[in-house]
Amino acid sequence: MFDFIKNEKIYNQIKFLVTVDEMKNILRMNLLADGSRRENDAEHSWHFAVMAMILEEYAAEKVDIEKVLKIALVHDLVEVYAGDTFAYDTKGYEDKEAREIEAANKLFGMLDPVQGAEIRALWDEFEAKETPESKYANAIDRIQPLMLNYLTNGHTWKLGNVHAPQILKRMDIIRTATPELWHIVEGIISTSIEKGILKP
Amino acid sequence: MFDFIKNEKIYNQIKFLVTVDEMKNILRMNLLADGSRRENDAEHSWHFAVMAMILEEYAAEKVDIEKVLKIALVHDLVEVYAGDTFAYDTKGYEDKEAREIEAANKLFGMLDPVQGAEIRALWDEFEAKETPESKYANAIDRIQPLMLNYLTNGHTWKLGNVHAPQILKRMDIIRTATPELWHIVEGIISTSIEKGILKP
Repeated sequence: MFDFIKNEKIYNQIKFLVTVDEMKNILRMNLLADGSRRENDAEHSWHFAVMAMILEEYAAEKVDIEKVLKIALVHDLVEVYAGDTFAYDTKGYEDKEAREIEAANKLFGMLDPVQGAEIRALWDEFEAKETPESKYANAIDRIQPLMLNYLTNGHTWKLGNVHAPQILKRMDIIRTATPELWHIVEGIISTSIEKGILKP
Repeated sequence: MFDFIKNEKIYNQIKFLVTVDEMKNILRMNLLADGSRRENDAEHSWHFAVMAMILEEYAAEKVDIEKVLKIALVHDLVEVYAGDTFAYDTKGYEDKEAREIEAANKLFGMLDPVQGAEIRALWDEFEAKETPESKYANAIDRIQPLMLNYLTNGHTWKLGNVHAPQILKRMDIIRTATPELWHIVEGIISTSIEKGILKP
């Protein structure tokens, strides 16, 4: 389709950018805030990035927000080939890493080696949860679906037959990476238990 | 729903972040790359930001990519209240500015004045097309749907009964803001005319 692009680097970049359009078709388990349908990876990544922008002041350690935004935008790209793994699917998690590394090699390998390595490094950093940017990004990546699950009567929790302690465990990074937002997690969990939409 | 958040600033930020979830329901005229359905504003904003990241080296003037990414993420937020205006809808464009300013006041007014003004400034900068960041962002904001329209047999062009000169005019900012990408516009237009999916 893009044979008229004679510059190989630009051609590969456009091919990559067309390939990642598929993120709009990768469905997550959680619904939109209005409960109308499942959210996809592109929407989640956008919402995560906007949340990271708005809530930056609550990062426990000062973050380079440019890097956080880049992480948010690319953190789920490997799912174009590896698919989404449900957060509470123990079986799916068994081979998640292997599937995603293979996908990363294939996807980021479409770009020239320097740029491919840059994007790969952002994804690796996110997965390692070691830098201030990665910790903050992981906290926001968890608050975003927590908020949507709460607004949709615990949709994902019911599907996964999830109890409160499992959520608390999964959300734990919020306690240290964004301590001023931890009371939101506690509020959501206690209110959800009271409402009967989450098992204690 | 979030009455347990006693800090007013955080409460308003969360309310804002839930409100903008509606971006996932604002449909644009163009389809996804696979032609399966119309794209929404959240997906478009994400794709625009990823494209801006990957194609940064082609910006005619050096850009602060952090600002470009922030612009990409928020440039369509006003559509939560103002709706999407079809690029080739002359009538819709008559009151577009007034509708969007009213929406901006309502939406960004949900945040505290300092943060609200920051987001508003990004949107104003994007609309003014004066800074290097704004020019580059506007170029990418036009290449993204051009690419999708080309991949879907000129879907939007047919709907709008658009001829090649109208597209060239709308894409003009690409010529100066990202000159190394201008041949893509020319290639898409000439190939589309040859294929009979665009009127000359």
